[in-house]
Amino acid sequence: MKRTVEEHQQAVLGLLRYSSAFTDRPAESLPLPLARGRVLAEDLHSPVSLPPFDNSQMDGYAVHRDDLAGAELLRLTVAPPVPAGAEPAGLEPGYAAPIMTGAMIPEGAAAVVPIERAVPSQFPSAAQYRDGELLTVELPVVEEGLFIRSAGSDLSEGSLALEAGSLLGPGQLGLIAACGLEAVPVRPRFLVLLLSTGDEVQEPGGILAPGRIFDANTTLLTTALEEAGVEVQRHRVVADDPQELRRALQDIGRPVNLILSTGGISQGAYEVVKQALADSSVEFLSVSMQPGGPQAIGTINGVPFLGFPGNPVSALVSFEMFLRPALGAVTGIPGNRVCLPARLTEDVQSPENKHQVRRGLYTDRSGQGEGIGDVTLLGGPGSHLLHSLAASNALVHLPVGTGALEAGTPVSVWLLSELRGGVQPLHPSNPNREALT
Amino acid sequence: MKRTVEEHQQAVLGLLRYSSAFTDRPAESLPLPLARGRVLAEDLHSPVSLPPFDNSQMDGYAVHRDDLAGAELLRLTVAPPVPAGAEPAGLEPGYAAPIMTGAMIPEGAAAVVPIERAVPSQFPSAAQYRDGELLTVELPVVEEGLFIRSAGSDLSEGSLALEAGSLLGPGQLGLIAACGLEAVPVRPRFLVLLLSTGDEVQEPGGILAPGRIFDANTTLLTTALEEAGVEVQRHRVVADDPQELRRALQDIGRPVNLILSTGGISQGAYEVVKQALADSSVEFLSVSMQPGGPQAIGTINGVPFLGFPGNPVSALVSFEMFLRPALGAVTGIPGNRVCLPARLTEDVQSPENKHQVRRGLYTDRSGQGEGIGDVTLLGGPGSHLLHSLAASNALVHLPVGTGALEAGTPVSVWLLSELRGGVQPLHPSNPNREALT
Repeated sequence: MKRTVEEHQQAVLGLLRYSSAFTDRPAESLPLPLARGRVLAEDLHSPVSLPPFDNSQMDGYAVHRDDLAGAELLRLTVAPPVPAGAEPAGLEPGYAAPIMTGAMIPEGAAAVVPIERAVPSQFPSAAQYRDGELLTVELPVVEEGLFIRSAGSDLSEGSLALEAGSLLGPGQLGLIAACGLEAVPVRPRFLVLLLSTGDEVQEPGGILAPGRIFDANTTLLTTALEEAGVEVQRHRVVADDPQELRRALQDIGRPVNLILSTGGISQGAYEVVKQALADSSVEFLSVSMQPGGPQAIGTINGVPFLGFPGNPVSALVSFEMFLRPALGAVTGIPGNRVCLPARLTEDVQSPENKHQVRRGLYTDRSGQGEGIGDVTLLGGPGSHLLHSLAASNALVHLPVGTGALEAGTPVSVWLLSELRGGVQPLHPSNPNREALT
Repeated sequence: MKRTVEEHQQAVLGLLRYSSAFTDRPAESLPLPLARGRVLAEDLHSPVSLPPFDNSQMDGYAVHRDDLAGAELLRLTVAPPVPAGAEPAGLEPGYAAPIMTGAMIPEGAAAVVPIERAVPSQFPSAAQYRDGELLTVELPVVEEGLFIRSAGSDLSEGSLALEAGSLLGPGQLGLIAACGLEAVPVRPRFLVLLLSTGDEVQEPGGILAPGRIFDANTTLLTTALEEAGVEVQRHRVVADDPQELRRALQDIGRPVNLILSTGGISQGAYEVVKQALADSSVEFLSVSMQPGGPQAIGTINGVPFLGFPGNPVSALVSFEMFLRPALGAVTGIPGNRVCLPARLTEDVQSPENKHQVRRGLYTDRSGQGEGIGDVTLLGGPGSHLLHSLAASNALVHLPVGTGALEAGTPVSVWLLSELRGGVQPLHPSNPNREALT
């Protein structure tokens, strides 16, 4: 069976959606400091209004409603100052109360005149207050409501603060803290049982036996899955013995949302996953993609199953192309890489009947008048080139129908990480630069 | 003192670079499963070659070097098969050994002919071997080296696998595992002491007292800092009492790389940070940015210090604009947000003399023929609008010189997260779509 990349993407998405065991699991309550990167399990309604009370947006003078209806220039008696955090006394007409940003607007006040517009433009000193001088201030008349943040203007008490399914990052957890909550109901993590297969695969550590390679896939995919917000149950490497693999799949222990294997699904004579699952509802198929062509998909005793090829680069490309976007759709944790255009720095050749996914180094060209970055391919198309993968920050798409491309041709890249720090130009010279003011 | 955004970005970067205490701290060794998101402390040289031995790239037949020099079509005797993970016997001329992907090339063999090109195009069955039949296979002559991955072609023993400063993600940790290492030397995390200030600020939990607000900043900035790979030492909220703040700063305990405060740096009468640090080498200044204009920067007893304004939106914008990129430059963990052009969905007005940073919802428009996403502003410019921030996925830049912009105008946005999952169109219809094949 032969599939396009998009057909298999849809199939993997369908498989994960089928895994109703995930969404049915009960929510857990976590303290805010432990909830980063998790997903809100229920709609959250605010127990308070934000802001909780009318407060000043500026340092200045609170002025009474009645005084705002009068002359253009006011001369008012200075009332005791209103610091933030206190409940002030009411304000009488004829008085102006020094008020600090965030402080509660006194009863009767209807606007705040910023200190810069007052004469004098400095608050009285502590000494002046202490001496009991009768202090006055000259203020312009302003419109009612000026520089007052009214209670509930950001969020009113009882209203929806965050929807179920929201990813909990800085803004979301900050909002929950502002609502006064110390804990938050989150969805359980998506749980994956991960197993590498192959007689040649040896756990890292120790001396490599002849004909053996160290297991890169368990570490590579655990890291990728955890970055995508998934909890991983790692299995030891399983040899090319269908019996042993079947036993491993029967002794899973706690229920998982997905079983993911690497290796053993190709055309060889010792394809352990294929042999072990020959009588199950798992399909073995070929996707028009390079690397990562051989794929397996189905269920094992009702548990969703995916089989990736055994080469590390094939495994990572399979993860990025099929599993990560589907996880994003199911878990609520963003799963789609940022896709950018970038110019090839060299000529490239791709098989026209396959979607080739190359690894590359994307370089931002902001501020160089180009408006588009460039991408240098690292290593060849070979699926064993793990060293080149480790130096890459992008996947480069050469989709079906792409043959020879010249250096300078723009292609689509997926960014695997954000770019290095430093002072970022605020305006990338993008194709719309001329329209940016 | 008045600064542009870029001047202050440079100043913050300079301050963090000054914090030599960070890079001087000793590396720690972590097992691979705990090293995700950390930064490699030393150059790493591989103790093995990758691949460790010449191996087959395909399932097929290994053919002897001498036979490749002969006729165009070969009829060879089938040797015992070479599975992956074993050390095979040498291959004699006149024989072809069935070999599986990843298996070691037998001594004497010089190419692999894929099984699809063999006649018969299936490997002999176990029964055929058992019966001791003399099996033959017909193979085309191929060029020497075909489908052999030679030892060290990805990485040779002793050579540089990863440079110091590399971020440890899936590809990097996968490579380290492939090298057989179980642990890796990583840089210590950058350590920040974080404290919120203000008489009005109350820890989340319990009943809100009149005039008080719950502390959002500690949670918001802890989350943002941790996402940027930083370790945070949270301080309890400090009241508007300069003595108390000075005591807090003296009792830090272990050495930190940065002290970060929120609130108390503006023009009001009770600016606690300003008062407490009046005699220190901390500058209080105004950046032409909205929100986040008031900023403090300097050192306290030699420890780098930054003071952000107290409104949560101002604090987050300050973090994203100044601290995150600088952390990226110093720690090696990417700190620059992806910057994309996007069209405004509404008219907008920005003060021409300030760099306004608005919050918005970026929507990808891949596949809709537009080639550029759009961005909907959420909430107004107000720095207290935490609810709108929590619904945003992007910062929208309206830099100095921007006045009125019409709906449809492209602006620069910084993505605060990746986008939701599902099946992502492989070709965003970007401005270079026509050039994409």
